[in-house]
Amino acid sequence: MAETVRRAPSGAAVLRPQITATITEAVLDALAEHGYARLSMEAVAKRAGVGKSALYRRWPSKQDMVIAVLSGLSVPLAEVPDTGSLREDLLATLRAVCTWLTHPRMATILPDLTAEAARNPALAEAIQATIGEPRRTLAAITLRRAIDRGELPTDLDLELALDLLAAPLYWRLSVRQAPLEPDYLDQLADHLLRALNATPQDR
Amino acid sequence: MAETVRRAPSGAAVLRPQITATITEAVLDALAEHGYARLSMEAVAKRAGVGKSALYRRWPSKQDMVIAVLSGLSVPLAEVPDTGSLREDLLATLRAVCTWLTHPRMATILPDLTAEAARNPALAEAIQATIGEPRRTLAAITLRRAIDRGELPTDLDLELALDLLAAPLYWRLSVRQAPLEPDYLDQLADHLLRALNATPQDR
Repeated sequence: MAETVRRAPSGAAVLRPQITATITEAVLDALAEHGYARLSMEAVAKRAGVGKSALYRRWPSKQDMVIAVLSGLSVPLAEVPDTGSLREDLLATLRAVCTWLTHPRMATILPDLTAEAARNPALAEAIQATIGEPRRTLAAITLRRAIDRGELPTDLDLELALDLLAAPLYWRLSVRQAPLEPDYLDQLADHLLRALNATPQDR
Repeated sequence: MAETVRRAPSGAAVLRPQITATITEAVLDALAEHGYARLSMEAVAKRAGVGKSALYRRWPSKQDMVIAVLSGLSVPLAEVPDTGSLREDLLATLRAVCTWLTHPRMATILPDLTAEAARNPALAEAIQATIGEPRRTLAAITLRRAIDRGELPTDLDLELALDLLAAPLYWRLSVRQAPLEPDYLDQLADHLLRALNATPQDR
């Protein structure tokens, strides 16, 4: 525990961003190669070429380290620009989900983490709090903008709508490992627009 | 019934169904407890109270054994009766997916197997061939019946429609570990009917 004390910037042990970045890469490599269960702080430190104390100065535990690294990578990928049109926003969101799921290493890491979470309630809760919910909050912004523009009904079932944005791609890419046909995202966007009772727009 | 022995014509090595059933339970227990990677033929044999030869007489490898057990449990769960109405058929299908995903032990086994498949292409292929595709074939029957009745368009995107039947529930139950609100399946069925361009029916 004493290792986690953060010293003032004037002190010797400041957290250097370059080292954090190196450790982050080592965590992602180790997760992809060995999975969460077999990942050890020792192995990550060795891979990053740092001492274990460099890890513990940043994160109090393996779970905190993994969650911080994956959240830092996953949440920004859920930010999509406001295109002014629901269909384009949906397509941007679906493309962003694809980018996330097919990100080098994430294609292995996410199913592994999901499996681990099914055995480890504390990990499951941390994943939802730091990855799942922040990603849903960002996606909800897109849907609320469409409600404000009159493109989606005001009584939209937001929880179900948010499930539908990520679920088909996770199922196809991460569970079934099936390829996306060239027009899959367009077709999916059209199915979602109908599912959500979107108002047809002139284009 | 359980003690029935099917005798081979020669009367030599026969496969007793009761032993197969005991081994099947041991495989499911071992998968749920330890996961695919750490499952060994020795551990399953010990748990079932049989010799390893009893396993190898039935299946040539660990992968064949696991796939046969999971396929035997998963594929029959995808059979739903013909209710004569697409909405009722969809609800029956969605309920059957829930039963599968929340089956004791499957809630742990399926995410674990998905994670393992992301690292093991041969396993991934076997899972799709013996579990994924047969389940989709059964679900497609339901959708084709609805096309024949005029409830779904003849140019239905069957591949995408099949994804939509399983994906939201896998995402919610197995990935997010979120509960189903009491009306979730009804709401989901209505979203799917719109997504698939179903013809509204008088009821």
